[in-house]
Amino acid sequence: MWTLTDQYAIAGIGYTDFSKNSGRTVRRLASEACLAAVRDAGLDIAQVDGFCSFNMSDSVQGIAVATELGIPNLKWSVDLYAGGNAANLIVSNAAAAIHAGMATHVLCFRAMNGRSGYRFGGGGNAARAAGITQYTAPFGLMTYPQAMAMWCRRHMIDYGTTSEQLGTLAVTFRDNALRNPRAMMKTPLTLEDYFASRMIVDPFRMYDICLESDGACAVLVTSADRARDLRAKPVYISSAVYGGGPNQGEDLFDLLRWPSHSHNCYKYLAADLWGAAGIGPADLDFAQIYDCFTYSVLMALEGLGFCREGEGGDWIQGGRIGRDGELPLNTAGGLLSEAYIHGFNHVIEAVQQLRGEAGERQVPGAQIGLTTAGAMTCGSALILRN
Amino acid sequence: MWTLTDQYAIAGIGYTDFSKNSGRTVRRLASEACLAAVRDAGLDIAQVDGFCSFNMSDSVQGIAVATELGIPNLKWSVDLYAGGNAANLIVSNAAAAIHAGMATHVLCFRAMNGRSGYRFGGGGNAARAAGITQYTAPFGLMTYPQAMAMWCRRHMIDYGTTSEQLGTLAVTFRDNALRNPRAMMKTPLTLEDYFASRMIVDPFRMYDICLESDGACAVLVTSADRARDLRAKPVYISSAVYGGGPNQGEDLFDLLRWPSHSHNCYKYLAADLWGAAGIGPADLDFAQIYDCFTYSVLMALEGLGFCREGEGGDWIQGGRIGRDGELPLNTAGGLLSEAYIHGFNHVIEAVQQLRGEAGERQVPGAQIGLTTAGAMTCGSALILRN
Repeated sequence: MWTLTDQYAIAGIGYTDFSKNSGRTVRRLASEACLAAVRDAGLDIAQVDGFCSFNMSDSVQGIAVATELGIPNLKWSVDLYAGGNAANLIVSNAAAAIHAGMATHVLCFRAMNGRSGYRFGGGGNAARAAGITQYTAPFGLMTYPQAMAMWCRRHMIDYGTTSEQLGTLAVTFRDNALRNPRAMMKTPLTLEDYFASRMIVDPFRMYDICLESDGACAVLVTSADRARDLRAKPVYISSAVYGGGPNQGEDLFDLLRWPSHSHNCYKYLAADLWGAAGIGPADLDFAQIYDCFTYSVLMALEGLGFCREGEGGDWIQGGRIGRDGELPLNTAGGLLSEAYIHGFNHVIEAVQQLRGEAGERQVPGAQIGLTTAGAMTCGSALILRN
Repeated sequence: MWTLTDQYAIAGIGYTDFSKNSGRTVRRLASEACLAAVRDAGLDIAQVDGFCSFNMSDSVQGIAVATELGIPNLKWSVDLYAGGNAANLIVSNAAAAIHAGMATHVLCFRAMNGRSGYRFGGGGNAARAAGITQYTAPFGLMTYPQAMAMWCRRHMIDYGTTSEQLGTLAVTFRDNALRNPRAMMKTPLTLEDYFASRMIVDPFRMYDICLESDGACAVLVTSADRARDLRAKPVYISSAVYGGGPNQGEDLFDLLRWPSHSHNCYKYLAADLWGAAGIGPADLDFAQIYDCFTYSVLMALEGLGFCREGEGGDWIQGGRIGRDGELPLNTAGGLLSEAYIHGFNHVIEAVQQLRGEAGERQVPGAQIGLTTAGAMTCGSALILRN
């Protein structure tokens, strides 16, 4: 269980525009977001001595950004080969590295041309699949939406989860995006629009599936003591978890070895997550839940104990997750309506909420919030507070 | 500077055979080495909850090995996209993660089919070069031996370093390999053989350049307290450094932006390395120096302060680096004559020496040793003690 509760903080944030075509290299995007985070913290670039990023061989290494920015003496740099489940892990790894003395000010970033460059949605990678996907791909079973759709359908059969409940998530997050200047999606969405949209992989319609985006996000992590002397209001890392259970697999359809499709990784992470922060679900002011698909939000809510297994669909109804509800969810629009910066944009939004800088979408008096990343057999989560 | 001095330890080691053709998958190699390390520590596989590895998209992720081995609850897993300079970094990252509460027993591994599978020696990757290499590759300048050869030639011109000195390193390490049952190279080598060998990239002859190998190595990292209760003699992590200076670049020939070719990354790492352990170069009983090329050993020795800049060639002569010398170097044969498991085999050998389990090649009474990894603008190093 996380032992560094509130000893480390996010002291700066930076991001580029989010678009379908950035018109520039991933290296440039990463450097822009990192430089913005350093300036937001009020630091000099020469004070940065560490980097932590994650990518799927579609981005740049920290050492490249360090060179672009002119970092004089790099002391720690870690580029994880990992999917969206690492979006919170890079923050906790940075804190752990600082605590071990390996660095002082660490830039965490995710930069991608996820629409104009390498696109995640397709099945092209199945050609190099190492696990069970090599046997499913020849039959056309090879993409994330397909995998998650089967999981979702299981939930519908077992627990009565409905398309209207999925649509409620899409509509709620879009409503939030309308109040977010950097969100890609600016058109209002109704449940009628949702039902009228194209079926992509039954039961997933177009609005159940996250965006493809170009862009970059970065945060500056340092010790709580140092953060308190910097320009921005510190946001403390109260808890951090990663992983989750047995049979992670390496390849998409390795999830067929997962023990049960009535839960995902979050069930295994909940006790440590809440334990380190000394709080429970009811104490949160908001949550930014990894919404690669609408359905993945339900699994996280159930696994983390907001409701019981199978009850997620009911739980999110009746205004509970809206801006004025009991638990405002994905207040910037999420991966479905803000942008898909592989989940790392959820961290940016959480920091803005906790600083009280979220403008029209501000949750009044927000003091403590949750971010999650990853939706299947392996995930990560942070509890952040101001 | 490393703050966890002697608080974490290597409690188990494992490795496969080293060969030119393993005849099995990288996943299998990784699992074999990891399982051996767990057994060496006397742990049950269910007690392992973390992984840390590095690769160049040529290996498997920790989550795959976790699945193969049946780890019931994975809590931390980090796969670095990195070159050999990460071979020590994965050990220090594991310790930092344990200290932060993210895991308890972490398996660090490097597994590769470096000869029968993905081969590092060629210029094929230049096709996707992002940095300066995209401009040099069309003219045939695209491989590591070429880059390091220019650096070495500069050293020869500036300081009078000779081919005989390079050859002395190759011959010394080969002599060590003859006493190492797992070494790939079993033929005695003389300076005459060295000079008679094929010139690959002037001034590098065949024996100046490391092997291409299939194989895997793993170590089990845990807290010093827990390690003391386990089967094997603990080897403590006294110091750990990574990085080194400005202009790291991301791409091979980005090193043309490096400020000077009279030193590499180690000059920037030395003060922290010795400082955290509270010792100096003269206190070591042995060193395992990253020898992707003979020449890289000289730069590390100079940078870390064993001798002054430019004096490495003289310093290694006169028997100083032999088994009975002042500083036995690369006692298992190194990357030049044992195997090239991307530098991680140096850590295995350091642990065996510090446990007194190095057989014929044992340095009598070895209590403290150094490992380095990486040879150019970015490196890592550990000081280990028993």
